[in-house]
Amino acid sequence: MSKHVYHGIVPPVVTPLNADGTVNFDDLTNLVEYLIASGVHGLFALGSTGQVCYLSEEDRVAIVRHIAKVNAGRVPIIAGAMEVSPQTVIRTANKMIEAGADSIVTTAPMYTINDEAEVADHFRIIKAGISVPLFAYDIPVRVHKKLSPKLLVQLGKEGVIAGVKDSSGDDVSFRRLLAYNEAAGKPLVLFTGHEMVVDAMALIGADGAVPGAANYEAAAYVRLWDAAKAGDYATAVKEQKFINDLFEVVFVPAGRSGDATGVGAFKVVMAARGIISSATMTAPLKGLDAETTAKIEKIARDLGVIS
Amino acid sequence: MSKHVYHGIVPPVVTPLNADGTVNFDDLTNLVEYLIASGVHGLFALGSTGQVCYLSEEDRVAIVRHIAKVNAGRVPIIAGAMEVSPQTVIRTANKMIEAGADSIVTTAPMYTINDEAEVADHFRIIKAGISVPLFAYDIPVRVHKKLSPKLLVQLGKEGVIAGVKDSSGDDVSFRRLLAYNEAAGKPLVLFTGHEMVVDAMALIGADGAVPGAANYEAAAYVRLWDAAKAGDYATAVKEQKFINDLFEVVFVPAGRSGDATGVGAFKVVMAARGIISSATMTAPLKGLDAETTAKIEKIARDLGVIS
Amino acid sequence: MSKHVYHGIVPPVVTPLNADGTVNFDDLTNLVEYLIASGVHGLFALGSTGQVCYLSEEDRVAIVRHIAKVNAGRVPIIAGAMEVSPQTVIRTANKMIEAGADSIVTTAPMYTINDEAEVADHFRIIKAGISVPLFAYDIPVRVHKKLSPKLLVQLGKEGVIAGVKDSSGDDVSFRRLLAYNEAAGKPLVLFTGHEMVVDAMALIGADGAVPGAANYEAAAYVRLWDAAKAGDYATAVKEQKFINDLFEVVFVPAGRSGDATGVGAFKVVMAARGIISSATMTAPLKGLDAETTAKIEKIARDLGVIS
Amino acid sequence: MSKHVYHGIVPPVVTPLNADGTVNFDDLTNLVEYLIASGVHGLFALGSTGQVCYLSEEDRVAIVRHIAKVNAGRVPIIAGAMEVSPQTVIRTANKMIEAGADSIVTTAPMYTINDEAEVADHFRIIKAGISVPLFAYDIPVRVHKKLSPKLLVQLGKEGVIAGVKDSSGDDVSFRRLLAYNEAAGKPLVLFTGHEMVVDAMALIGADGAVPGAANYEAAAYVRLWDAAKAGDYATAVKEQKFINDLFEVVFVPAGRSGDATGVGAFKVVMAARGIISSATMTAPLKGLDAETTAKIEKIARDLGVIS
Repeated sequence: MSKHVYHGIVPPVVTPLNADGTVNFDDLTNLVEYLIASGVHGLFALGSTGQVCYLSEEDRVAIVRHIAKVNAGRVPIIAGAMEVSPQTVIRTANKMIEAGADSIVTTAPMYTINDEAEVADHFRIIKAGISVPLFAYDIPVRVHKKLSPKLLVQLGKEGVIAGVKDSSGDDVSFRRLLAYNEAAGKPLVLFTGHEMVVDAMALIGADGAVPGAANYEAAAYVRLWDAAKAGDYATAVKEQKFINDLFEVVFVPAGRSGDATGVGAFKVVMAARGIISSATMTAPLKGLDAETTAKIEKIARDLGVIS
Repeated sequence: MSKHVYHGIVPPVVTPLNADGTVNFDDLTNLVEYLIASGVHGLFALGSTGQVCYLSEEDRVAIVRHIAKVNAGRVPIIAGAMEVSPQTVIRTANKMIEAGADSIVTTAPMYTINDEAEVADHFRIIKAGISVPLFAYDIPVRVHKKLSPKLLVQLGKEGVIAGVKDSSGDDVSFRRLLAYNEAAGKPLVLFTGHEMVVDAMALIGADGAVPGAANYEAAAYVRLWDAAKAGDYATAVKEQKFINDLFEVVFVPAGRSGDATGVGAFKVVMAARGIISSATMTAPLKGLDAETTAKIEKIARDLGVIS
Repeated sequence: MSKHVYHGIVPPVVTPLNADGTVNFDDLTNLVEYLIASGVHGLFALGSTGQVCYLSEEDRVAIVRHIAKVNAGRVPIIAGAMEVSPQTVIRTANKMIEAGADSIVTTAPMYTINDEAEVADHFRIIKAGISVPLFAYDIPVRVHKKLSPKLLVQLGKEGVIAGVKDSSGDDVSFRRLLAYNEAAGKPLVLFTGHEMVVDAMALIGADGAVPGAANYEAAAYVRLWDAAKAGDYATAVKEQKFINDLFEVVFVPAGRSGDATGVGAFKVVMAARGIISSATMTAPLKGLDAETTAKIEKIARDLGVIS
Repeated sequence: MSKHVYHGIVPPVVTPLNADGTVNFDDLTNLVEYLIASGVHGLFALGSTGQVCYLSEEDRVAIVRHIAKVNAGRVPIIAGAMEVSPQTVIRTANKMIEAGADSIVTTAPMYTINDEAEVADHFRIIKAGISVPLFAYDIPVRVHKKLSPKLLVQLGKEGVIAGVKDSSGDDVSFRRLLAYNEAAGKPLVLFTGHEMVVDAMALIGADGAVPGAANYEAAAYVRLWDAAKAGDYATAVKEQKFINDLFEVVFVPAGRSGDATGVGAFKVVMAARGIISSATMTAPLKGLDAETTAKIEKIARDLGVIS
């Protein structure tokens, strides 16, 4: 097991780009410093928000190496190894571990058509090929397989996985996962990926959250989390409402794809706050247009986030 | 452009394995010789039937190299480069081209959430990174995006793609694709991936088929295709009915996953016919059990395919 | 069993409306006369094309009564009884039978979450409540359940259903249905609902088609069918290509719903040909706008269908 | 508007049956008395849990009439009018209103393929045809359309709908609905249909819940709700955990359909507690077998719910 404790606010780190589409490592330094200064409890590199599936393997490893260097051990780093087969997940994971990742996160197989026993073996094969904790990323909207509470707790009891990032949007399933995990002696650390209901998920027992919106407003999430841990749910709800009002930025872009919209809006606010220098997106995604950018900035300005 | 003409029966080559799960290259030699001796018009390496997403990149490249060596230029080889980002598709594709692939086939992005313009650019980026013809593999059941007829013909007119393998199961869309392609001067070679309706698809103008079932019964497909090309649809339908009766083997396995079932049944018949030496599957898939194997062999025996 | 033979071209009859949204029975007379004069082999009243789920039960029964009166026994009438429970299907079905329907067609349950055994019993309960042949309408895009070939042939062997209208878009399933039905001694009459591939479906053994596009171009479908029955597939394909070129009208409306688009385009061509007097749609659907109407009419004019 | 205030725990009332499948009105009396004695704040007749789409219209109206008679005005009654067209929804709704329903609830259209503007008009047409408050039932798993927060709040501002039962399982959407409704001056009463997360939904601002599980354990839900309203979330979570442990009964049935499983398990516990006399299900559903029943009863016994 890692020396680290996984809990609290663990943002999925955005990948900043130069105008020519290459990775902007100076901006990445700024972003990591912003997040850690805001009090986040960990960093999730190369998730969907980090646009993991729009980058070369070399860039992905370089990003992990850079984040690890800037972080310098202050918080634990979970790195996303998303690949098309168990063997390629292991290959990339080991490069990321060599580059400084403290743990690895991966999804159910994304192209294949499997039953639950095969998905369980997929995770077992990957865990056998790496030397650090493995997290399961439950994101059916992308890989079109739901990881059941029973499967996840079974893998936790075996020591195959150390935790889960739940981006399934299935709150009944997450509630059952919390209950089964508790009944099994808490083998798993359970993170919600739903940034708009972190207050509610804290109430029912989540160990933390992986909110993309923390890339531009990390402090409010940390305040939310601290309040919830202290049992002050009125404050947690108040912070969440502020976060959600700001989160309306992702619903501004009309007629664009899901991937262009969410991270695109995040980058606009990040750039407006000076956390990164450009809202450039990875090809084949294109950045948001000037009109959309202005609408997003107006929301942020009206909420006092930018001036 | 390639020197090759793409048309007719182009089986998606099964990946034979040793009992320990490593690739059985002797069996692969046998399989390629069986297919070419049966008269197939091309080979599609590392599609879903070749279990592309259960193998390491090294094995995938070695398989292409071996098929190319055995083939020795007799028929064109299309190799599947399925990866998680445009950059990794290009990297693997170029390794496969160096290993002897005559052309590359890839899918829409499999993890990301994109609109049609982004999917078009995905193919454009990949084409710009390779030097051989590129085919689009339309398989929404795996990548959860449908490639529209307009998109495909547009990419054909631009010279981005040379053809399509349609495994969408959407016959209305395929009919429109045929019509749009004809109206555009036939920039695309259009293959159906639906092995049970090759007679019907030949009637309406398909240029060829990529039938997984040809791995164990290639000759019937070649007879079907030759009959259809000669306008003898009565014979084409007769051959298709024989193929379909035999194809019932894939519906025998009960309670198993889609990937274990289809290729699993193919391998059982291939092993029973002596085309390969073992029905071993790639982990985390497991082979079919003895009872299921016996039922599959009975179907093949009743149809005179094995003795 | 009915005295009728079910086969060939059986259009799903559009419901013509007055400008105020009430049913236009004079237009309905014209439409039925047009279809029968064109040589169709039956009439399918109140399917999706007839906008069955946008009408009161009273109107639906009145439409059946009117069609039956105009038809006067010339061709068989299949009437769609789409309701939310077996009991309400039976109630409406019996009103339609009293009004002159020769047989009834219904779908799998549309709101409930059932397994295959329950769906089978759903059809058995309905059949026990009516005295005429029952057809199964396989349309998963609307009721989100696929009727399997085994289920359908089992119901055929029991005498529960007399036939199937397949609008599943799953050509592999339809091919298996044809094979299983033949092996069982043909208990079922099998219609395809896919208007763009009637030539191909005739080749592989369909007993008929239920093409919505026959509402505005019935004669071409009858010529297609006659050619296919005579084994002249070159002519069948030629007629289908003409039909498909004209069918592009349904792809003209942009940014509108599926239900507004398809029947909306049909009605525009029907009105332009004088088969009905108004392209009015049932609320909450709205008719197509003038620009879209003009584009549709241009396609029809370019193909010589209207002048 | 109704004289009633809609809020709190509003169970979707199970429909008790005699062994022959007819409605057991004596049991229905007992059930209504049990629920009201437990302190519930309203009754939702003929939702999915009431098996609305397995009953004749006559039975559905008779059930509403009986519930209204037993209730005698003590709590408000919302009755489900689920039908295939706006006209038939209105017809059934008016029969239910005449029978004593205080308000009506209905879903988006279930068979048709519509855009959001058409769905909005669907609700507007229905509201224009009835004289009591209308609730929208957002249940995409059954009708395959999601009602967006913007659509619902717009309909609320127009006075078309008075509230929403959210069974979408989409917590991000529900959070946005709460925020938009608050910003609009609370035109809507917002109920969650997710019985396992009522504590969390109360925290974030839900006005009530429609929990199927209240049919067998209403008192715990009332205690949960009262605690949450008093700001005592520790107690609310504790009650929810008890409810959830008991809710494991619905995960016991293996290999059965969704509709047989959930209500089937509810009825087993209700019968074991003496709230109803038989766990008979409506055809084509079948009741749970003896082994499954015993496992369900063991869960209830271990939790002290039955002796």
